[in-house]
Amino acid sequence: MTYIPTISITVEDGNAHDKNHNEDDKIMKLKLRVRTLDLDAAGKTIAIINKEDALDLGVRALERIVLHKKKKKITVIVNITPRFVKPGEIVVYNEVKEILGLKNKDIVFAEPREELVSKKYIRKKVEGGELNYNEMRSIIDDVIERDLNDLEIAAFITALQIRGLSVNENAAMAKAMIDTSKKIKFSGVVVDKHSVGGIPGDKTSMLFVPIVAASGLTIPKTSSRSITSPAGTADRVEILMPVDIGIDKIKKVVNKCNGCLVWGGSVDLAPADDLFIQIEHPLDFDPLLLPSVMSKKKVVDSKYLVIDIPTGPEAKIKTKEDAEKLARDFIELGKKLGIKVDCAITRGDQPLGYAMGPALEAREALENIMNVKHSHDLIDKVTSLAGLLFKMIGKGNKYTAEKLLSSGAAEKKLRQIIEAQGGKADIMPDDIPYAKYKAEIKAPYSGIVAAISNHALVAAAKAAGAPKDKLAGILLNKKIEDVVKKGEVLFTIYAERKQRLKQALKIANADAFSIFDHKKRKMLVEEVKR
Amino acid sequence: MTYIPTISITVEDGNAHDKNHNEDDKIMKLKLRVRTLDLDAAGKTIAIINKEDALDLGVRALERIVLHKKKKKITVIVNITPRFVKPGEIVVYNEVKEILGLKNKDIVFAEPREELVSKKYIRKKVEGGELNYNEMRSIIDDVIERDLNDLEIAAFITALQIRGLSVNENAAMAKAMIDTSKKIKFSGVVVDKHSVGGIPGDKTSMLFVPIVAASGLTIPKTSSRSITSPAGTADRVEILMPVDIGIDKIKKVVNKCNGCLVWGGSVDLAPADDLFIQIEHPLDFDPLLLPSVMSKKKVVDSKYLVIDIPTGPEAKIKTKEDAEKLARDFIELGKKLGIKVDCAITRGDQPLGYAMGPALEAREALENIMNVKHSHDLIDKVTSLAGLLFKMIGKGNKYTAEKLLSSGAAEKKLRQIIEAQGGKADIMPDDIPYAKYKAEIKAPYSGIVAAISNHALVAAAKAAGAPKDKLAGILLNKKIEDVVKKGEVLFTIYAERKQRLKQALKIANADAFSIFDHKKRKMLVEEVKR
Repeated sequence: MTYIPTISITVEDGNAHDKNHNEDDKIMKLKLRVRTLDLDAAGKTIAIINKEDALDLGVRALERIVLHKKKKKITVIVNITPRFVKPGEIVVYNEVKEILGLKNKDIVFAEPREELVSKKYIRKKVEGGELNYNEMRSIIDDVIERDLNDLEIAAFITALQIRGLSVNENAAMAKAMIDTSKKIKFSGVVVDKHSVGGIPGDKTSMLFVPIVAASGLTIPKTSSRSITSPAGTADRVEILMPVDIGIDKIKKVVNKCNGCLVWGGSVDLAPADDLFIQIEHPLDFDPLLLPSVMSKKKVVDSKYLVIDIPTGPEAKIKTKEDAEKLARDFIELGKKLGIKVDCAITRGDQPLGYAMGPALEAREALENIMNVKHSHDLIDKVTSLAGLLFKMIGKGNKYTAEKLLSSGAAEKKLRQIIEAQGGKADIMPDDIPYAKYKAEIKAPYSGIVAAISNHALVAAAKAAGAPKDKLAGILLNKKIEDVVKKGEVLFTIYAERKQRLKQALKIANADAFSIFDHKKRKMLVEEVKR
Repeated sequence: MTYIPTISITVEDGNAHDKNHNEDDKIMKLKLRVRTLDLDAAGKTIAIINKEDALDLGVRALERIVLHKKKKKITVIVNITPRFVKPGEIVVYNEVKEILGLKNKDIVFAEPREELVSKKYIRKKVEGGELNYNEMRSIIDDVIERDLNDLEIAAFITALQIRGLSVNENAAMAKAMIDTSKKIKFSGVVVDKHSVGGIPGDKTSMLFVPIVAASGLTIPKTSSRSITSPAGTADRVEILMPVDIGIDKIKKVVNKCNGCLVWGGSVDLAPADDLFIQIEHPLDFDPLLLPSVMSKKKVVDSKYLVIDIPTGPEAKIKTKEDAEKLARDFIELGKKLGIKVDCAITRGDQPLGYAMGPALEAREALENIMNVKHSHDLIDKVTSLAGLLFKMIGKGNKYTAEKLLSSGAAEKKLRQIIEAQGGKADIMPDDIPYAKYKAEIKAPYSGIVAAISNHALVAAAKAAGAPKDKLAGILLNKKIEDVVKKGEVLFTIYAERKQRLKQALKIANADAFSIFDHKKRKMLVEEVKR
């Protein structure tokens, strides 16, 4: 176009051009009377309006409107009903009620939502562009404000999954997550460890944190609950002490003990990341691994960080090459954020230690820190990781970690943390009960354990009731390279409910163990025919 | 792994291995009592359960469970509440109620949903693989069964948008859509026309269908309602006759008149496509254009098809090159499906004809088919497209179409269709009222109209109330290359509500018309400074 002239306007109807713009604006908002029901929407902001009002606002079901209540406003997803909600009425879910501070019969004003700038940036990523800090920040702001809906976030996550994030994009995303998060300041040299996850039974943190805290470093460890595994670290730790203790108490615990073992959800850092995760998990995508991990370390001002990358055919990371690439990406992003990062690629070809399931794992961790049992792979991994951290800082090595463990210093530190977080400081392994029902799976013939399927054991432990039934889970009696005799127990399933045990047994007799017996080895792999 | 042995199992608890597998299966299902509320979810299947039951089923909010009622089952998305729904109770939205045939206090059984195979195929597409018929079909089946949720469909749509569809994938998707749709058989040579859309005021079908039907060909035309425009063809046609008449009546109308003008939603063909569209529209993605259009033509057994591709800077297709590529893709897919396709690239640089908005457009179409007015671009486009179709079949050319129009045959046919669909056959243009309020926008100086912004006029017409207020909209007084004098009317906005007119005026005085006056031409485009 050449250029846009100002166009003169005449209105037949007369006074269309009065100056009362405020009134104009107000009139286009729809006045609605609130009806509250006790409906939760898992953090989503949802409201239900009548079909007529939806037509008037020009929205269809699952599209968004903006609700105003005095100075506050929030974008909500609308459900639409012909009768349950009357014209002029609006039913709000609890999330909306809380954010706007609504009571039954309050008046709110509704208007269609304007197009978001962040949608343009999502489209840019879809089309293969690279997003800078301001663009990432715009998306994150709209995610936090609930202005972008699930579909749009899913499109963004999928685009990130397909296109990947450049080094600069990872840094931009991490910085935007950091800048929209509260920060916590701890005294001392703040360090941390993070596992990218993916193998069952990984109770490393329960020993790592006491060892590191006992060395005098500050380690405010937050962990997640189980998503798809029989137990997350928060679930395991919760057997010994409360993990949802709030930010003020966390500060006190860390001040006193140099460390804590708490549930990440109780801290509520990096809110955008939590909202992304709600979309990533059901899709089984994880494109934001790097900025997600690193932003959460930066907001507590961690200076040194060890990343554990378990690697194996049934772990999240399958090959050493992938693990090395990921390690380099972590180190690179750490440089951009001012965090010193070293990575450990660890064996992930079988569960760590012998126990899977919250209570069984808590018992194993306690027995090992008390030096009354010795799960070799667990101890070797914990002391290797702690040694790597000590070397980074110039404060020792693997042997330092082994000494802190064998001397009882780590146990003493764990009991101090248990007490500070509100647990029973003198808890003993036998205070943790076993589940009511169990079933033993025995070897069908003699040989050597060649492989153990993480997937099969996870499925069985979950079928047995873990993590909801805290005592449910699996204890391994054998691990890779152990010699087994026909009839010896390979593993034991524990369940709190009989039917759960039956369900676990239905799936546990396949895929779990491969026993090698050279006399039974079948040489034919496959027949390829015409 | 070398190989998987069968493992012998002993159960301490005794009878875990009874043969009653049915009983086992049943026990893991949760028994719930239905509470019905009059809640619509726009085609989604949603239910609300108590927090405790959700934990027991192992689902989080917005995840899915399968509900069983006797032999019927359906996958539903769960909302979770701590109190509004009690443990053992389930509130179902109307969609679930209807599909399972539920009454208040009925008993249903709930179970967690198994992992879907189709999720693997979505991941394959995300990772850049090519999907074959069986894989597309698996996805479509799970979309239709509501087994894939919005997030998963959004991920799939985004992956298609980014990766694109190969020729084979378009064919596989179209065939899967066809095979999951009902089919309708009409007598005669079935033909059709489709516009890929994107310019306002496009009332082509209202003249094209009567002309083609008057020539003796069979044209069972279905159209959509407005999504983002001031009127869709179904909205325009509805001013003259009912468009939601059901499949049986459509058959009668087409048998009698050789053609119809109905709303696509009343036919319910290609159900998967409608569900994809619910996700595509809010994301503003359209990767399934080709299979979506072509499957809907194939299920009514169209043999010849003309595709209209309006092209212009503010149309859906911006350049002639893009239009040509799209045309070749349509022709190619037509070959694979047994439909002869020719395409017309048409000018899309301004609205078609003079009217925008349901009633204004219906009046313009009626006046033109009655030969009492002549919107040059509309008539030229209609007869060009009809001529292209006639040439494909060897039944004439553009002149044939012009004759059918000027002779009154097309008008007679339109009135026959109006009567058969239940409208008033002798409707006259003046039977269609104008809106209550109007405002004229006048030229600020003399010159030649150089450009008209589709976007600006669409925004103004929608602000004026179209398509919900059927009489609302815009009439152009000038079009591109018209000479205008200062003070002459450029266009007139119509509204049913005073406040709507004010809103339209707020945005109509910018961006709509570019008037060229060489004496006022500013030569400086931009200053680029240090």
